[in-house]
Amino acid sequence: MTKGIGCPYGTHRVLEPKGVLPQPAQRIDNTMEIYDNEVLINVQTLNVDSASFTQIKEQAGGNPEKIKEIMLGIVTERGKHHNPVTGSGGMLIGTVEAIGPALEGKTDLKVGDKLATLVSLSLTPLVIDEIVAIRKEIDQVDIKGKAILFESGIYAVIPSDMPENLALSVLDVAGAPAQTAKLVKPGDTVVVIGGNGKSGMLCLYEAKKRAGVTGKVICVGRRAEALEEIKPLGLANEYVLADSTDAVGLMEAVKNVTNGEMADVVINCVNIPNTEMGSILAAKDTGLIYFFSMATSFTKAALGAEGVGRDTTMIIGNGYTKGHAAIALQIMRESDVLRKRFEALYA
Amino acid sequence: MTKGIGCPYGTHRVLEPKGVLPQPAQRIDNTMEIYDNEVLINVQTLNVDSASFTQIKEQAGGNPEKIKEIMLGIVTERGKHHNPVTGSGGMLIGTVEAIGPALEGKTDLKVGDKLATLVSLSLTPLVIDEIVAIRKEIDQVDIKGKAILFESGIYAVIPSDMPENLALSVLDVAGAPAQTAKLVKPGDTVVVIGGNGKSGMLCLYEAKKRAGVTGKVICVGRRAEALEEIKPLGLANEYVLADSTDAVGLMEAVKNVTNGEMADVVINCVNIPNTEMGSILAAKDTGLIYFFSMATSFTKAALGAEGVGRDTTMIIGNGYTKGHAAIALQIMRESDVLRKRFEALYA
Repeated sequence: MTKGIGCPYGTHRVLEPKGVLPQPAQRIDNTMEIYDNEVLINVQTLNVDSASFTQIKEQAGGNPEKIKEIMLGIVTERGKHHNPVTGSGGMLIGTVEAIGPALEGKTDLKVGDKLATLVSLSLTPLVIDEIVAIRKEIDQVDIKGKAILFESGIYAVIPSDMPENLALSVLDVAGAPAQTAKLVKPGDTVVVIGGNGKSGMLCLYEAKKRAGVTGKVICVGRRAEALEEIKPLGLANEYVLADSTDAVGLMEAVKNVTNGEMADVVINCVNIPNTEMGSILAAKDTGLIYFFSMATSFTKAALGAEGVGRDTTMIIGNGYTKGHAAIALQIMRESDVLRKRFEALYA
Repeated sequence: MTKGIGCPYGTHRVLEPKGVLPQPAQRIDNTMEIYDNEVLINVQTLNVDSASFTQIKEQAGGNPEKIKEIMLGIVTERGKHHNPVTGSGGMLIGTVEAIGPALEGKTDLKVGDKLATLVSLSLTPLVIDEIVAIRKEIDQVDIKGKAILFESGIYAVIPSDMPENLALSVLDVAGAPAQTAKLVKPGDTVVVIGGNGKSGMLCLYEAKKRAGVTGKVICVGRRAEALEEIKPLGLANEYVLADSTDAVGLMEAVKNVTNGEMADVVINCVNIPNTEMGSILAAKDTGLIYFFSMATSFTKAALGAEGVGRDTTMIIGNGYTKGHAAIALQIMRESDVLRKRFEALYA
């Protein structure tokens, strides 16, 4: 007796409102009995989206028990770890416990494989039985629990040549460096806002690789210490200390290091609100801005560019692009300094 | 005795919070005494952004006196018509009353010129002395009042070969057709969601012109009557009746008219929430989506594409692009049927 075949996108588990996809849904069915085209995962670690975890930590005043309470509350209410304030999720690591019979021959997964889901927690059916440990500094939470991967759900099998927490921390932001690799052309001037953060460092690495010796990569950070720490890694050509919520200040700072020419590509990796305008003013009039930050406001970006008469192209960061896991994991193999820093900070 | 030179972006008029640009500001200085690089405008008509006016009408329950009260309240509180719920503005038409001495030789404007500002009302210092008339169906409000144009503010002088209300209604959404003209290539399959609306019709026209005989332009609307009305204009190759908040339903409908191939370019012109996922599923895996709707949610779009593993490029609609006023006004000269429809509906 099976449950039958569900929708590849998971609409069969949406409880409220009916007819929508699992991500925008208010509440989804997190019963841990799989449909024939689903994968059951024994969850080990949640890597909560940085904007979401920052909000939860703030709401909890940093108190671990309160953090647990908030996280369990979200999952009880919604059937998924979909932060109602930030709208964002994160991803998870776990082991394949069961594969629906309809996926045989369609998936390369085997029971027992260790994998990271590359779809957001904001659409993944999840049950948390217990929160075992919280690693506040790296947005990771170890749990006992289970989750469901839909047929369309993307994932990466954890590579055997690096520790799994390292792989997880990289895969969580895999879209950013992969998109950077596609956007940056030789000779480009590239600004990475929040370049000292996790996704920021990976973007700097890819930007420098693609812009090459004729390009210029500029790392923007708002804490002098953080910039000093990252300088020895050699990921950028210039380091700029600026608060990216101060649009005019950021513009002046970027003007200084580009002889007034500004950036061809601006990559925004800071998970704080009100950095849209700074990103726009840091770019050339015909520049391209890639918003990877989940704190980005659509209207602030759209009206901001119009308000200053800028002809910039502004892209909504898509966490997925073909080969993004391979591109991001490869950085850990290519760059000793980055691997060491990621091991020290996130793994 | 002059007030001196202000910041080209208008930061000198920001009251709260200090240091930001006028658009994100909570409150700006709407004193109608100009700085040396500002233009004073005698305002005749406000063209309120469609998302904003829809919200105001709903809040007012359609009552004109209540609409006036809400609009006056916004301007009194913020010094600009910046809707606190939708975050959006609109634009205005008026006559140049005074030009700051520092702009002499820098601007082609003359006192007495009739112009439309092409920067958002959400950043434009405005005083409303009286609301004279409300044209609810076309989001236009005639007022007695004044406004300020900053040095960086873009505008279009109203052309003499068409009625000014017609020009205004076109200029209000000029960014959409101009961006369409830049994005669509010969042979493309293009879906315009909300193709029967004001910006939608202009986008259809440009899409058909650019995609050419080898392309396919699909108009999506959610009311059968509206689609029947627009068919005789010949703006599209296919007309699809679908509710774009029903992502799966829209996907199936587009699948039907494209032999399952889906769209190269999707242009979203509907000012209602929750159409991000429908836009994504209507596009090819490597398609391009242009969100012109101010009701777009950044996180819903970003997480939506990731959630279904789609490699789509998603662009934040920029209301400004070089030559957008010229491109949009030209449509009224080229297309008799569109000009007649715009005259009937909006002018």
